[in-house]
Amino acid sequence: MTKKLYIPGPVEVNADVFAAMSKPMIGHRMPEYATLHASVTDQLQTLLNTKDPVFLSTSSAFGIMEGAVRNLVQKRCANFANGAFSTKWHDVTKRCGIKADLFSTEWGQPITAKMVDDALSSGDYDAMTMVHNETSTGVMSPLTEIAEVMKKHPYVSFIVDTVSSMSAVPIDFEALGLDVCLAGVQKAFGLPPGLAVCAVSRAALDKAKATPNRGYYFDFEEFEKNDLKHNTPSTPCISLIYGLDAQLKKMFVEGLENRYQRHADMAQATRNWLQQQGFGLFAAEGHRSVTLTSGTNDGNTDLEQLKKLAGEHGYAMDNGYGKIKNKTFRIPHMADMTMSDMEEYFSLLEELLPQVRS
Amino acid sequence: MTKKLYIPGPVEVNADVFAAMSKPMIGHRMPEYATLHASVTDQLQTLLNTKDPVFLSTSSAFGIMEGAVRNLVQKRCANFANGAFSTKWHDVTKRCGIKADLFSTEWGQPITAKMVDDALSSGDYDAMTMVHNETSTGVMSPLTEIAEVMKKHPYVSFIVDTVSSMSAVPIDFEALGLDVCLAGVQKAFGLPPGLAVCAVSRAALDKAKATPNRGYYFDFEEFEKNDLKHNTPSTPCISLIYGLDAQLKKMFVEGLENRYQRHADMAQATRNWLQQQGFGLFAAEGHRSVTLTSGTNDGNTDLEQLKKLAGEHGYAMDNGYGKIKNKTFRIPHMADMTMSDMEEYFSLLEELLPQVRS
Repeated sequence: MTKKLYIPGPVEVNADVFAAMSKPMIGHRMPEYATLHASVTDQLQTLLNTKDPVFLSTSSAFGIMEGAVRNLVQKRCANFANGAFSTKWHDVTKRCGIKADLFSTEWGQPITAKMVDDALSSGDYDAMTMVHNETSTGVMSPLTEIAEVMKKHPYVSFIVDTVSSMSAVPIDFEALGLDVCLAGVQKAFGLPPGLAVCAVSRAALDKAKATPNRGYYFDFEEFEKNDLKHNTPSTPCISLIYGLDAQLKKMFVEGLENRYQRHADMAQATRNWLQQQGFGLFAAEGHRSVTLTSGTNDGNTDLEQLKKLAGEHGYAMDNGYGKIKNKTFRIPHMADMTMSDMEEYFSLLEELLPQVRS
Repeated sequence: MTKKLYIPGPVEVNADVFAAMSKPMIGHRMPEYATLHASVTDQLQTLLNTKDPVFLSTSSAFGIMEGAVRNLVQKRCANFANGAFSTKWHDVTKRCGIKADLFSTEWGQPITAKMVDDALSSGDYDAMTMVHNETSTGVMSPLTEIAEVMKKHPYVSFIVDTVSSMSAVPIDFEALGLDVCLAGVQKAFGLPPGLAVCAVSRAALDKAKATPNRGYYFDFEEFEKNDLKHNTPSTPCISLIYGLDAQLKKMFVEGLENRYQRHADMAQATRNWLQQQGFGLFAAEGHRSVTLTSGTNDGNTDLEQLKKLAGEHGYAMDNGYGKIKNKTFRIPHMADMTMSDMEEYFSLLEELLPQVRS
């Protein structure tokens, strides 16, 4: 049975996206590709408010997350972590043979400006990584405040994963002074997985050129050289790029402000609904994501069983990630979802909850 | 205007492939994905005659080409080259900070068993790379003969790019004793780009575990750990994997022998046609590819103009690659193409050639 996806990525993909992805194939060295590439990267630059290049990486986000540290850590990396993906980034950094330290806070809590400032004040680091919106916990860290303290550390590359927030909240690449801002397209962009996008600052591009052993596939210099010709170093995932072009156009038709508001409204409705149903909210107050909400189990709900029943009704439910699986569960509200999708899901769960609560 | 692709990859993608790619999205940690993954990897194992795992890498082929050397070179790599892509592999190897030497022969010539044996007999190397079917020149090197001499060098990892030959000619991974055999799906598999497949031997998997700094995204150990659960380390390009599943099923319905014969027949027809038209064949006799044929310009044909005219008629023509551009041009005959596609193209070119020959 086909299940409607209520998991925080990959998200449900609409028919118009598949139609865009089914356009006749083109060669990536044909002018037709350059036109497509330029259309997509221009729109991404508008979305992120930057004139710096936005690269299209044929990979999932972790590819370019690895690439970012391979390009930008020459001395030592500070990996800030408050969930599964930010913690894994530290592991990935070390596996590249890069010196790195982990600065963790409790899951459910945000990375704070103070935490970043304290760690970087040692002067040991020339790069930092953080995840803006931790998909494992539903916490959105205060990027503006962190960006403010990053101004005190201009020689530290500011590398931010916005995998599940890009296009759902304003991210002003220039104003924040980001060096790298990356995302996968299977979250708020509403596409199938397989493509990552990555804005890189001029300072980071210049720094990368002097970093040894950064390889080829995720090499920023190689990306830039090709992007200037509206192209990619290797054969790109053309169908997904067609899909991204269509999704970006749809975003600008909706209007970015309307889009951000739609996400905020769905998030608020989800928080309200969870509390009405007697669940807690896992993410700390003031740091709750606009693209997914983690409810805390009230201790009386069999989330495994709830997921099973939802599956039988044709809905794919999430029951938490990693070490907080079944202690929490996540409800996505992103991409092309609307309030009516949320209401549909709330109704389903209201019907099923009495069967799984003791 | 939409152009029918007669370039050697990305190739024309048929409507049934796009339909398969448009199946409703699923989560990669849902059992539905494990079923899909197992179906695809089982079929790839049958295709390559191996019980060793075949990994699905969300990247183009160059990603896993870089990954292969990062995983398997501990001492020094011998990169054998007879065209643009095999030469670039040497560059990619060095950019990873890996010690490597280039052993080149003239473009148009194959890599020979003697060349490999001579180079490896120094004892300096613990890995070698070669491209079975050089897409830049249309040369298919004698893999069986090379495999024979590789038996004298059991400690040298045998890493072969079959990007434009896999599924068009028999490749017996076990019998050849390959350590890595990789391909992108936008060539003979007839899919849009964005996915690479990669068979890895037990010996290579064990060796990789002891190689430092191999990173995460292309780490063989990580691939294997996840593949055992019919999964991938990072979010995979699910739509392309649906497409690959459909294409593999179609291959087995056609029958592999029929499929290989179809490619051989189209190749022979193309060679005949080129010679009838007064062109030479660029690849050395006995080493001509079954998936694409490079014609040599007779000196009197304006290939740029021919390409332009073909474009105006709705056909994307190739006019050579890299340093042999316009001195050669390539005609693809692979994936879902049939003899009638070849005849359609020959007719077009016969109509146009008188206009571009002096």
